[in-house]
Amino acid sequence: MNLDRRRFALALAALGATPLAAAQTLDDDLVHAALLRERGLADTLAYSLIESLVTEVGARPAGSASNARAVQWALAQLRRLGFAKVRADEVSFSIWQRGAESAQLTAPYAHRLTLLGLGNTVPTPDGGIEAEVAWYPDLEALRSDTSERARGRIVVIDQKTERSRDGSGYGRAIGMRTGGAVEAARHGAVALVIRSLATDHDRFAHTGSMRYEPSVPRIPAAAMSVPDADLIARLHERGRPVSLRLALASRQVDARSHNVIAEVPGTDLAGEIVQLGAHLDSWDVGHGAVDDGAGIGIATAAAKLLLDSGRRPRRTVRLVLFANEENGFDGANGYAERYKDEPHQLVSESDFGAGRIWRLRSRVRPEALERIALIGRALAPLGIEPAGNDASPSPDAGVLMRRRQWPALELTQDGSDYFDVHHTENDTLDKVDAKALPQNVAAWAVAAWLAAQSDVRF
Amino acid sequence: MNLDRRRFALALAALGATPLAAAQTLDDDLVHAALLRERGLADTLAYSLIESLVTEVGARPAGSASNARAVQWALAQLRRLGFAKVRADEVSFSIWQRGAESAQLTAPYAHRLTLLGLGNTVPTPDGGIEAEVAWYPDLEALRSDTSERARGRIVVIDQKTERSRDGSGYGRAIGMRTGGAVEAARHGAVALVIRSLATDHDRFAHTGSMRYEPSVPRIPAAAMSVPDADLIARLHERGRPVSLRLALASRQVDARSHNVIAEVPGTDLAGEIVQLGAHLDSWDVGHGAVDDGAGIGIATAAAKLLLDSGRRPRRTVRLVLFANEENGFDGANGYAERYKDEPHQLVSESDFGAGRIWRLRSRVRPEALERIALIGRALAPLGIEPAGNDASPSPDAGVLMRRRQWPALELTQDGSDYFDVHHTENDTLDKVDAKALPQNVAAWAVAAWLAAQSDVRF
Repeated sequence: MNLDRRRFALALAALGATPLAAAQTLDDDLVHAALLRERGLADTLAYSLIESLVTEVGARPAGSASNARAVQWALAQLRRLGFAKVRADEVSFSIWQRGAESAQLTAPYAHRLTLLGLGNTVPTPDGGIEAEVAWYPDLEALRSDTSERARGRIVVIDQKTERSRDGSGYGRAIGMRTGGAVEAARHGAVALVIRSLATDHDRFAHTGSMRYEPSVPRIPAAAMSVPDADLIARLHERGRPVSLRLALASRQVDARSHNVIAEVPGTDLAGEIVQLGAHLDSWDVGHGAVDDGAGIGIATAAAKLLLDSGRRPRRTVRLVLFANEENGFDGANGYAERYKDEPHQLVSESDFGAGRIWRLRSRVRPEALERIALIGRALAPLGIEPAGNDASPSPDAGVLMRRRQWPALELTQDGSDYFDVHHTENDTLDKVDAKALPQNVAAWAVAAWLAAQSDVRF
Repeated sequence: MNLDRRRFALALAALGATPLAAAQTLDDDLVHAALLRERGLADTLAYSLIESLVTEVGARPAGSASNARAVQWALAQLRRLGFAKVRADEVSFSIWQRGAESAQLTAPYAHRLTLLGLGNTVPTPDGGIEAEVAWYPDLEALRSDTSERARGRIVVIDQKTERSRDGSGYGRAIGMRTGGAVEAARHGAVALVIRSLATDHDRFAHTGSMRYEPSVPRIPAAAMSVPDADLIARLHERGRPVSLRLALASRQVDARSHNVIAEVPGTDLAGEIVQLGAHLDSWDVGHGAVDDGAGIGIATAAAKLLLDSGRRPRRTVRLVLFANEENGFDGANGYAERYKDEPHQLVSESDFGAGRIWRLRSRVRPEALERIALIGRALAPLGIEPAGNDASPSPDAGVLMRRRQWPALELTQDGSDYFDVHHTENDTLDKVDAKALPQNVAAWAVAAWLAAQSDVRF
């Protein structure tokens, strides 16, 4: 690309770069950041990777045959793109696999419900479970119920998930999914059915993982679509006894998969790692386009931009396509173990859909905050606001950050519509807004570059 | 309601009413029409009926136990509302019933498809059918194919349904559903799978009826969701052989149901019928809220408005909630037979969802066109445009019109989003826009009233 230096000098001025005498190196890095930003905004690779992944592989639940195909797909793509040290690091785990599932209203009349078992749920006994519903508006109402109302019943929790840009609505509701079965079992319930964590009104159940506690009986847990939850709420309002029959099959199997890794080699600080990432697995339902095909496309295209930019970064930029994010974080844990001795400048992950990035957050040492501010100024032309040093990065990066105290960067996407299709049959390619991707690619490339070049350890 | 006569005199002037000396009766009728319009715009009955039907009955495929409950529901509601001659006219028919269905991509990889058998399809043999796909962009491409490409294969037709206010996009695509299996069988295909007639991009299959022809082999026929059709199209573009496995169970059973009827008694012309209608059955999937819970609410509320308006119409206004519109028109045919000797001033049906009405069309004798124009002027304040004398009323009314040459009125709803949820699991209460209903109620009440009062036979 034929660059006009003077044009970028103006951009530099806007970034409030250090005085001319101080750091020609820094100026060069900022010029290069501006180049990456411009090239990123013209990106088409991210979308074509997503299209390829969902078309040629489809859904790829951790440990499945299609997950293994996804690993092969990723290795082939990363090699084709010219990355260094392309490899697959094996991780093994025990994983929950869905079997046949069905649910119906049995009183006041027969009516099939759209429902999915939650990840890790125990199966129902043969023939399923049928019981009257004990209805609660939210998890707190169940928690504070001192009556015997839930005993022997199927607890329904109808908590609504509010639409929000930052996912806080989901955050407020998720306890119902992860911990609802434990709470229901404490109240003597025989099963739990929650309103899906969903901002849509479509007849899709939203699955997701849940947990048991050792001392509490394990009862089956599932999520139903919003229109089905609304129906039950309307019947409940009428004071009609409502009964459900629930049949969930599943099994726990030993499986293995791989973190797929590729690198842009560093120079003088090549032993330090700037980690970009996304997760390669998906839930079994849907095509995994938004979750996390989008992240695979974005992170890979950002790394490729660095690879082809004409300058090698000081630190090594490592792209990690994590295994089994959805139900165990085994890829992140495996990575944290395998690379524990390698200093990480930052860890990160793109895993909040395909929307535009609007916020930068970090979790770094105070000494690095000046550099983060510089990254913030370099991202400002992309419409990204700097925020605090309290990053809550996407899940795999969160695992790395917590386990290793590695510094983290969060580029928060607009998640306003993320929970419309999250963990549903409806997560398909058409839900990816191709127009929003280049801004993501530009932002990750710029942030990774300036992190890789920093004189300061994060 | 305390009416201000002078206010309505102004409305009359706007309607271009005949000179004062000419017809006090007509003026009174127009004043009453304005009253109905105003009251209709304050309607809440339509929504509450829809809510009641889908909550207390749910899906109600023709001839099913839930259809029988819908009939009881309707009889109870119409009696409660105070209508005259509330009754259920039995109709019997042979009806297709869906069994277990499944479909998957088997090459280039295994992938479950979201698919529904089309109404009337034959089942697949035990174990299903597996074959390579012969892909066609539309029905015409299949028709004009003189090769052997489809022989022994599963024909996929990928024709897109364009969004349109008047349903014309659906009209252009429906031949693929109704006649595609015959055309595919003529080309030697073993099954047909079409892209759903859908304007949404959600992972729902849209069912609907199809037909066979006596001289052509009967092959199974189904519709897949738009994202699944897109996936197959992308694989086809790549030149990859695509194979499907299809398993459809169904049976044909003898069943019965009822047209549910209620009347607003006429006066001097009570023997002539102004027929309002909707259909009580739904497909087996979804809750039947938009199709045709909405019509049930609208038509019933319009009739109730006439019942309570303080003036009895000259002709009898008859509300007919038809049986089995979806897959046989047995209710309409039964009605046409049972009431063939009763003169009908008009037949009509509300069965195009819950959107606002934007157009008035008629199919009447030339002598009645002046009255139709008057109705048009009375509907103008509701944003409804008069159009031609070439009405194509909703299906049951269309059957009556064609079989008996009864005059027909069409109040065309805005169907822009109708084919987003039409015949899917996703046809649920939240898809009904309660704000659009009162305008519908007002329009039907005004039109029925002015038809009932007319000096002229339509």
